[in-house]
Amino acid sequence: MDLVIRGGTVVTAEGSFAADVGIEDGAIAAIGKVPGEAPAIDASGKFVLPGGVDVHTHLRLPTDELPDRLYQDTMAAAFGATTTVLSFIESPRGGSPLETLRRWRAGAEREAAVDYGFHVILTDFGERAARDVPAVIEAGCPTFKGFMVYDELRIEDADLLRAFRLTAERRGMMMVHCENRTLLEDGIARLLAEGKTAPRFHAASRPPLLEAEATYRAICLARAAGAPLYIVHLSCREALHHVREAKAAGLPVFAETCPHYLVLADDRYEGPDEDAARFVISPPLRARSQHEHLWGGLADGRLDVVGSDHVPRRLADERAKGITRFVDIPNGAPGIETRVPLVYDGGVIGGHLSLERFVDVTATTPARRFGLARKGAVEVGKDADLVIWDGDAARDLVQQDLHHSADFTPYEGRRTRGVPVRVFLRGREIVTGGKFAGTRGGGRFVERKLPDLG
Amino acid sequence: MDLVIRGGTVVTAEGSFAADVGIEDGAIAAIGKVPGEAPAIDASGKFVLPGGVDVHTHLRLPTDELPDRLYQDTMAAAFGATTTVLSFIESPRGGSPLETLRRWRAGAEREAAVDYGFHVILTDFGERAARDVPAVIEAGCPTFKGFMVYDELRIEDADLLRAFRLTAERRGMMMVHCENRTLLEDGIARLLAEGKTAPRFHAASRPPLLEAEATYRAICLARAAGAPLYIVHLSCREALHHVREAKAAGLPVFAETCPHYLVLADDRYEGPDEDAARFVISPPLRARSQHEHLWGGLADGRLDVVGSDHVPRRLADERAKGITRFVDIPNGAPGIETRVPLVYDGGVIGGHLSLERFVDVTATTPARRFGLARKGAVEVGKDADLVIWDGDAARDLVQQDLHHSADFTPYEGRRTRGVPVRVFLRGREIVTGGKFAGTRGGGRFVERKLPDLG
Amino acid sequence: MDLVIRGGTVVTAEGSFAADVGIEDGAIAAIGKVPGEAPAIDASGKFVLPGGVDVHTHLRLPTDELPDRLYQDTMAAAFGATTTVLSFIESPRGGSPLETLRRWRAGAEREAAVDYGFHVILTDFGERAARDVPAVIEAGCPTFKGFMVYDELRIEDADLLRAFRLTAERRGMMMVHCENRTLLEDGIARLLAEGKTAPRFHAASRPPLLEAEATYRAICLARAAGAPLYIVHLSCREALHHVREAKAAGLPVFAETCPHYLVLADDRYEGPDEDAARFVISPPLRARSQHEHLWGGLADGRLDVVGSDHVPRRLADERAKGITRFVDIPNGAPGIETRVPLVYDGGVIGGHLSLERFVDVTATTPARRFGLARKGAVEVGKDADLVIWDGDAARDLVQQDLHHSADFTPYEGRRTRGVPVRVFLRGREIVTGGKFAGTRGGGRFVERKLPDLG
Amino acid sequence: MDLVIRGGTVVTAEGSFAADVGIEDGAIAAIGKVPGEAPAIDASGKFVLPGGVDVHTHLRLPTDELPDRLYQDTMAAAFGATTTVLSFIESPRGGSPLETLRRWRAGAEREAAVDYGFHVILTDFGERAARDVPAVIEAGCPTFKGFMVYDELRIEDADLLRAFRLTAERRGMMMVHCENRTLLEDGIARLLAEGKTAPRFHAASRPPLLEAEATYRAICLARAAGAPLYIVHLSCREALHHVREAKAAGLPVFAETCPHYLVLADDRYEGPDEDAARFVISPPLRARSQHEHLWGGLADGRLDVVGSDHVPRRLADERAKGITRFVDIPNGAPGIETRVPLVYDGGVIGGHLSLERFVDVTATTPARRFGLARKGAVEVGKDADLVIWDGDAARDLVQQDLHHSADFTPYEGRRTRGVPVRVFLRGREIVTGGKFAGTRGGGRFVERKLPDLG
Repeated sequence: MDLVIRGGTVVTAEGSFAADVGIEDGAIAAIGKVPGEAPAIDASGKFVLPGGVDVHTHLRLPTDELPDRLYQDTMAAAFGATTTVLSFIESPRGGSPLETLRRWRAGAEREAAVDYGFHVILTDFGERAARDVPAVIEAGCPTFKGFMVYDELRIEDADLLRAFRLTAERRGMMMVHCENRTLLEDGIARLLAEGKTAPRFHAASRPPLLEAEATYRAICLARAAGAPLYIVHLSCREALHHVREAKAAGLPVFAETCPHYLVLADDRYEGPDEDAARFVISPPLRARSQHEHLWGGLADGRLDVVGSDHVPRRLADERAKGITRFVDIPNGAPGIETRVPLVYDGGVIGGHLSLERFVDVTATTPARRFGLARKGAVEVGKDADLVIWDGDAARDLVQQDLHHSADFTPYEGRRTRGVPVRVFLRGREIVTGGKFAGTRGGGRFVERKLPDLG
Repeated sequence: MDLVIRGGTVVTAEGSFAADVGIEDGAIAAIGKVPGEAPAIDASGKFVLPGGVDVHTHLRLPTDELPDRLYQDTMAAAFGATTTVLSFIESPRGGSPLETLRRWRAGAEREAAVDYGFHVILTDFGERAARDVPAVIEAGCPTFKGFMVYDELRIEDADLLRAFRLTAERRGMMMVHCENRTLLEDGIARLLAEGKTAPRFHAASRPPLLEAEATYRAICLARAAGAPLYIVHLSCREALHHVREAKAAGLPVFAETCPHYLVLADDRYEGPDEDAARFVISPPLRARSQHEHLWGGLADGRLDVVGSDHVPRRLADERAKGITRFVDIPNGAPGIETRVPLVYDGGVIGGHLSLERFVDVTATTPARRFGLARKGAVEVGKDADLVIWDGDAARDLVQQDLHHSADFTPYEGRRTRGVPVRVFLRGREIVTGGKFAGTRGGGRFVERKLPDLG
Repeated sequence: MDLVIRGGTVVTAEGSFAADVGIEDGAIAAIGKVPGEAPAIDASGKFVLPGGVDVHTHLRLPTDELPDRLYQDTMAAAFGATTTVLSFIESPRGGSPLETLRRWRAGAEREAAVDYGFHVILTDFGERAARDVPAVIEAGCPTFKGFMVYDELRIEDADLLRAFRLTAERRGMMMVHCENRTLLEDGIARLLAEGKTAPRFHAASRPPLLEAEATYRAICLARAAGAPLYIVHLSCREALHHVREAKAAGLPVFAETCPHYLVLADDRYEGPDEDAARFVISPPLRARSQHEHLWGGLADGRLDVVGSDHVPRRLADERAKGITRFVDIPNGAPGIETRVPLVYDGGVIGGHLSLERFVDVTATTPARRFGLARKGAVEVGKDADLVIWDGDAARDLVQQDLHHSADFTPYEGRRTRGVPVRVFLRGREIVTGGKFAGTRGGGRFVERKLPDLG
Repeated sequence: MDLVIRGGTVVTAEGSFAADVGIEDGAIAAIGKVPGEAPAIDASGKFVLPGGVDVHTHLRLPTDELPDRLYQDTMAAAFGATTTVLSFIESPRGGSPLETLRRWRAGAEREAAVDYGFHVILTDFGERAARDVPAVIEAGCPTFKGFMVYDELRIEDADLLRAFRLTAERRGMMMVHCENRTLLEDGIARLLAEGKTAPRFHAASRPPLLEAEATYRAICLARAAGAPLYIVHLSCREALHHVREAKAAGLPVFAETCPHYLVLADDRYEGPDEDAARFVISPPLRARSQHEHLWGGLADGRLDVVGSDHVPRRLADERAKGITRFVDIPNGAPGIETRVPLVYDGGVIGGHLSLERFVDVTATTPARRFGLARKGAVEVGKDADLVIWDGDAARDLVQQDLHHSADFTPYEGRRTRGVPVRVFLRGREIVTGGKFAGTRGGGRFVERKLPDLG
């Protein structure tokens, strides 16, 4: 053995037990009594978790002004107990998904601090996409995304249907952002016409009905195509209703929610404009009464995954450009570093989730559904992506302690129980004692297998 | 290490992976790469499963005529890949549950071939029961059963409510046989009045409506008491509907089905009386259209466990007594040896369950829900109750090859894929090459922890 | 024509239209343009409604101390726009339903101010009941009642099942009071043990769960018997859920609610004991959030009827006896005079019901479901039971203005829109200008037809 | 009185009773005992029904080749017990709805044999539509239609939303043809690509999923706009599910089915191409198992109306043009003359509907929902549109006995019970003894009121 983590309590999606974890060649080689003289790390009194898997991030390639941002955001992942991230990458309309993938692979190569992969965003589905998609799947990126809204990103229903069909033939999977464009555009137009342009009107422009409609439509299109469907950032019981019915009908429909829908609510829009602006996320924060439905869905399996929907927004840039209207604010908020701690604190400490289910929704199930065959579980043969987790320690989430490339956190000042004290990527320690111990470019591109839909 | 099982594919409720399993002092000490010179067993090309856990059996104490039957039935369990059995034991009305437990512990002590435990059947809930129940829980038997029907066994609703409340206070759990007595007695009386006494009328006497009503009533009583509820032998979608609604409301309601409801149907009552008599089980075999609902329920978690409801009936005895009317036939059928193979064959080979979910419903979840903290999973620290399973081999289930103390099997001649080739109990091999390699009395009474309801 | 009501707006369950109503021989002989010189009454600016039908009352036979009470309560009905009342009459356990009916027919004969009929309460179902029930149906009383709670009144499930079956064979119908006895007795015992005896604990002793369970059980028993079922005084959405599912399954299940569940709530138990005591009604008043479910159910047909559950309680008597514990208080409250006004005010003025649906649930549907073939509608051939209703007038409901034999009203001081200004029974005016214009004994026993279940 | 129909059994949505019906100035002036010496018609032994109201027809204006077709189809309505028809009229994209209405009013003026009105089909919703719609409502046509499919007719979602909003502001109502265009076009393209062009592939191109998706989307758009919604020709339980949920949520959503979905099934597509071609209707005929859901929906109010979706197709023309591919066949089939008889025969004789509900769904509710204030009921003050109906007589539906302008009937040879023997329009007899007794142009344009949504 190269390294043994001794004396901790191993947590899997299935159970928790005292065991040493032996690591060899970057993989988990033994669990239990691990003899020998290998170097040892003490985890007594702590949990040993699989490294988190965040399948929903929006990383950015380095630019001259921000040469470090991909490095920073992946390092932030590590500090947040996440050792694998999948990022959406956008294939412009009419462009080549394969070319997009090549460009990103090259751009990320010497940057990432944790392992990573990509989902290509399909904005249309013409000949080029039809030709490229099989190659992209072959290249280890079997999942794609379609947006049902946004001018530049939206894929029309007819193309979405084709995307469902072709990806399903190749045993890939579509992820879909479900909101109804017609209602959204109408809502925005009406608010603007009434002079309601402040950030606090963001939520009013996209109520749960928009999400419910689009969720059901996406399910119908996927069903017609015989395709699986992964619904990103589900935020409300109205949409969850359709997921439940789809699952009950035996359809391979999966759904993700995000920490901000679990712990924040629409009262955040009531503050001053510059505070409200931080929460311009889509779907928007919902009524507090939605929380119990989402936690309940995570607990009983109607919801499968918690993703971060991390967007490294910089408010300073927006201020510099004089952006004030909610429609002009780039949607999103950072979350890559806070995802795992918030689910532990809100879910496990909050009494909504068992320790095992917490591991399941933040690591095990996302790994399985996205073809990350070597990730997401403390299991022999998996990569030794491990986290030593102090379940009792508490800290306040504050921007100045975080590592992402965004310049704020939506959780400023929030006290959370649960702290990752040491983090390992393929057996090498990358976070220790509050310091980054890995290397820029130490994260590898993961050639993913096909999604496990069972 | 005392023993290493090498080269197999370990299956847990969560995943499957190639790993050695190291055993020390009867427990699983290491999983993965297990170095050293310990004796090794080759499991290459085979699955390594946790020993099955059958929480629903009706064992019988030895008598002069049948001195071997407890031994035989527990040996049969071992041959059927099951290494822990929990048996119902009946506390007569007004009797002492604790005394019942003592009598059984003494009677089983030198007999059992696999590990075992008991659930006391509560037939009333007066002062004696109130006094004894905490002591029985203390003694490692935290689960009890109530029957809503049968003259000798039935517990009245008021006592059932008290039982729910007191067991819940002590963090135990009630298991309930749910059928409506009023409708059952009425149905029987009407059939008898019409001269419909043959075994084939058994099913007509207790249609799904009886089970649905009682299932909902039991849920309501448990809910009022703030108690968990385990519904035994659920057989139909009508009852499953209420379980689903209870789970959706966040109640700790669990449900079990049995192999005979999954693979047999009510066409079995159409044969000659002596054939039909074999299937006088309650609830009765249902319409074939129920199968998909039950498999679906197991797959998606509305159903939690498959138990055998093993009853070591002897048709010869019934024939000797001249029993012919369905109401006189002792209900039940043997199943302790066929449970795991039938769920594998019907579920995994039949395409209804993943390999992991098969392990979950036959071993992992029953262990967790019944406080068998060291059973039910291939996990470090658990007892080394292990099965080397040949997933490809097939055989015909026939009475002459089976080992139980009953004199028939309801599955006579049924071909099944999946054969347990070697079985280990706490690290000692008890079945090998089709021979029993354990010892009479080698099974131990398990002092169970409190049920894990999370 | 003997009389013509001219110039009003006739309201039926189906529509409203300007029309004269011609009366001949006590029946509605013509609607529309009614020529001729018959005496005329002016109804211009008013609604012409069918006389209300109250199928849920508990009248009392005269006694020496209270020789007028049946007269008073039926007169109160007339003042409340109700011209037909059906009263429950109790057949003691082991007694003869037919004898009970004879006694009541004799006792009521010279008393009633409006037309009336009876439902016999079946407290058991032995030979006597089996023999009498067909005769009681023949005698024009095809509907019976069973209580699932109360020591003296309760019918056991087995007898209830027999009652369902026999009444259904004769095309009669059972009405059932649905609460779970086991949970009720347990709840009461626990409250008393804690010294919680004040009236305000009444509601805590019988929460919605009790009603939901018993409602579903009654539906199952009726279903098994192939019988229709009329659920009295449904008070909560938990029970309504089962009614909706039963109706969706095509079962002949009907449900009634009462004004107090529609306009009062459990905050009434929070006052001083003597105030709270007025509201000791079963099922108890519920949370205010239930109101919308009940109004919604009435509007869309999940609920069929509003009955009053009129009980002519006299608080003075209770005070004289020193009754203070909630368990000793005779359940019930007066409502025969306030039912129709409260449904109009709460439903029509409150925006929950159309004018037509108001007439439907207070007159037309109760008449149809209870075999009152000549009652409940302004329709040619029906009895000329008519009400001239001022939809705009308002008044305060106060005990001193009411006419019932109770000594209080639960609605003291409540302002209501809608006043019956003239009331006709079979063409004769019985209320006019706030005075009783009918006669003691002017109400007739109605020999009812079989219920219309279509 | 001008005329009295004596001795019949009047049927309303609420009840049935023996009564004379007196007619004066074309309206129902009296019901019941109608004295006087007015001319009388004997209806003894027969039902007196309100004239049917068919709100879903596609009439055609006269052309040189077919100068009589509007006359023929409205005469056919009369022969089929229908005295008011509403026809869709198409406003070409960018055209003026008001101009369309003017053209149709002029073209129909001297043709119609029964009373009539129009719904303008909105194919877009630009400035012209926004300006015209209020005027069209003012002109007595408060209901409009949107198609979610068909190249020439389709309205885009954004325009549909605007149409919902503006019509709702003026208290009008949109009717929507709900099928998903994306899935339809995809299905057609795939079938054509496989050479599946025969009429029998029509159903495969538009399965229930398409209808379910679009039904839910239309409900969501209407809900967002605060608008009522009338769903035309609902054909399957998958769509009905959404209607039920919408109604349960208290939304003003109404749904119509058609006789062909109630009595015909998709086995009709299995015959020779020329037979199958007759059934190219959209939505297509469904599986026979759908029938019970639709009848059940009509019985319990989830479905509100039966419309005919009458299209006067002429197969001869299609043959002349050599049309053979299902995509080229003009969708639709005649039904104006057979609607009422089929609902009576299938519903009342078939045991699914009461006599009253039959009248309700074919006359009373359609009149109410479409602002036909003087139509649809045998009620004082309504137009004397009456049908004397022989409920026992039977006949075979055959093309040579029918009067419509189509050259076939989908019900050829079907025996039906129930025959309209005399039909009156505003008091004048228009069908008698199997002969037309009315006049060309005797039908009047009805200026409709606003829909009654209560």
